[in-house]
Amino acid sequence: MVLKRLKEIENPTVVAAEPLTEFVGSLMQAAGMRENESREAATVLVDADLIGIDTHGVGYNLELHYLPGLMSGFMNPQPDTRITHETPGTATVDADKGIGLVAGRFAMNLAIEKARQTGIASVAVPNSSHYGAAGYYARMALPHDMIGLTMSSGGARVIVPMGARDPWMGTNPIAMAAPANEEPPFVIDMATTVVSFGKVAIARTFGVEIPEGWAVAESGEYVTDPANSPPAHGQPPLGETHEHGAHKGTGLGMMTDILCAILPGEPVSGLLPDNPKGGRFCHYFQAIRVDAFRPADEFKANMDEMLRALKNEPTADGYDRVMYPGQPEAEAYQDRVDSGIPLAEHSIAYFKQMAAELGVDYTL
Amino acid sequence: MVLKRLKEIENPTVVAAEPLTEFVGSLMQAAGMRENESREAATVLVDADLIGIDTHGVGYNLELHYLPGLMSGFMNPQPDTRITHETPGTATVDADKGIGLVAGRFAMNLAIEKARQTGIASVAVPNSSHYGAAGYYARMALPHDMIGLTMSSGGARVIVPMGARDPWMGTNPIAMAAPANEEPPFVIDMATTVVSFGKVAIARTFGVEIPEGWAVAESGEYVTDPANSPPAHGQPPLGETHEHGAHKGTGLGMMTDILCAILPGEPVSGLLPDNPKGGRFCHYFQAIRVDAFRPADEFKANMDEMLRALKNEPTADGYDRVMYPGQPEAEAYQDRVDSGIPLAEHSIAYFKQMAAELGVDYTL
Repeated sequence: MVLKRLKEIENPTVVAAEPLTEFVGSLMQAAGMRENESREAATVLVDADLIGIDTHGVGYNLELHYLPGLMSGFMNPQPDTRITHETPGTATVDADKGIGLVAGRFAMNLAIEKARQTGIASVAVPNSSHYGAAGYYARMALPHDMIGLTMSSGGARVIVPMGARDPWMGTNPIAMAAPANEEPPFVIDMATTVVSFGKVAIARTFGVEIPEGWAVAESGEYVTDPANSPPAHGQPPLGETHEHGAHKGTGLGMMTDILCAILPGEPVSGLLPDNPKGGRFCHYFQAIRVDAFRPADEFKANMDEMLRALKNEPTADGYDRVMYPGQPEAEAYQDRVDSGIPLAEHSIAYFKQMAAELGVDYTL
Repeated sequence: MVLKRLKEIENPTVVAAEPLTEFVGSLMQAAGMRENESREAATVLVDADLIGIDTHGVGYNLELHYLPGLMSGFMNPQPDTRITHETPGTATVDADKGIGLVAGRFAMNLAIEKARQTGIASVAVPNSSHYGAAGYYARMALPHDMIGLTMSSGGARVIVPMGARDPWMGTNPIAMAAPANEEPPFVIDMATTVVSFGKVAIARTFGVEIPEGWAVAESGEYVTDPANSPPAHGQPPLGETHEHGAHKGTGLGMMTDILCAILPGEPVSGLLPDNPKGGRFCHYFQAIRVDAFRPADEFKANMDEMLRALKNEPTADGYDRVMYPGQPEAEAYQDRVDSGIPLAEHSIAYFKQMAAELGVDYTL
């Protein structure tokens, strides 16, 4: 099963979260970021590793996005992140071409603060860059007994909209987190494609065959052997075919483009066909105060009840248990806090190379 | 193609929207509703017919939901729809077991009014019943230059969550509408299943074969010939299989349950296994003032630009044009305003029977 195999790393170097965060923060600081913001950014990235979302952790993303982005100037290392438009329950925050990991924390904290007054608040962020795993920002709402929601759009065109030949949108993820009491919280974090861009990219790195429906060639035919074929031309939207709901995946991707990009005034990637990188990234954040609707303790008790009931449902053939979104990540977190984060050889080689290049001690 | 064939009706009676709304309103009033609320409810239902969403129009839903619901007392015909909890940007509205079509309009109007002050507002509605096509309420935001969003959960258990054997959630639709200027607005209205419950139900009525992945038997095998098999045990979530994103459809369905039911304090359908009808319906509404983020005229001009660009993309094999969510409905609307709404023989027979039973003149 490719979904599992992508997480299997041969001969990993296993590192605890704290020294990894420290080291990654030092690299980002050496690449030009302010010290406090580099630590924040590293925390977001290592969090993805801790919860087992390897596609969005330090192993792939420092090399794929952040260090080249900072060093080339595509990401402004010391942005002036600022509010440009505001009402009691909303804000537009210009990320000043900064790193999405910093703009994301700033904007989600602002949504949380505003929601204290108005019950619900949304913040849209144009002019940003890749912000890592969306679920991180949604989960920021949980300690405040709030529901968190975020989306991100932009970047390289990946989704081939239903009926179209060519990719047109980013993978445009949507995430939502809702607090529970004793059970791990509900956290959905999903690309609006069949699978995330990272899964297809990692399959190519490791030469792993992928299922039909994950990636298409320019001819429209499925790519299943990324190691021996050109890179995928694009990826089908969630639903994959018209009969199975590709118009829904397309629509969810467009919804993300509208809230992240068009609402605060940034061109969507589909409008920039001559730019191979597509548009800048833009984000949307929302916080909902549970006790604006009813007492938070009652809500969380009912969340526990729902999540337990679903876990205890009889299973379908081929499954040994029913899991809900957020549960595998909570289990991975426990495992990796206990045992450390596995990193592949090529990631370690890249870290050593960048440490040397940026004059940072290699401490892993 | 079954998606098209479901809309083909043999020997239809064709009726204009206005007399149809008048007649349907009279039936609902005779079933116990207040006059103004019965007209509002009929308007929502006929709107679905006008935009070509036959699964949610008067033809199937008066018989499937509303007249039996009103006459059996499951739907309170004269509810005391009232706000039970409120902050500047949120409200909980108790629908008092009333008809969802009335509660839905009440709650979306409240969200729109609140958003004028706070920029964004959400209203959750427990203790309701079926509210028709979700997209109607999302579109209510458009004349106010707002983005509208709604979800509905509850009712019979239909979605079989990924990994589970049995259905556990309703089809839990999500809808969002965003205004444009010259182009038809973006409107997505999607069940979080592969297809809506109505599509499978209508396929059974007409004896039409359906694709694999739309419905499953108790054994877990796909049902494709609903005419010659037991009714579907349940329907797969959007994504259909794990490899193709069924965990995403499951998570979107749970997100809907959380915002519609758990947030305002209503048990989700999955917690009521002994009730074949599942939980009561609950809804969630949100309005976002575009000019809380930037001038609405600029937003709508950019929406036009995006929608036109997507329509003009080169097509994939098998498609003669690229369409976006909301565009087919806008085209159907024009067609049916001009030519009338086609109704099947069995719907007309039911209307005549109910007119006689309720002492209403049959005027179509």
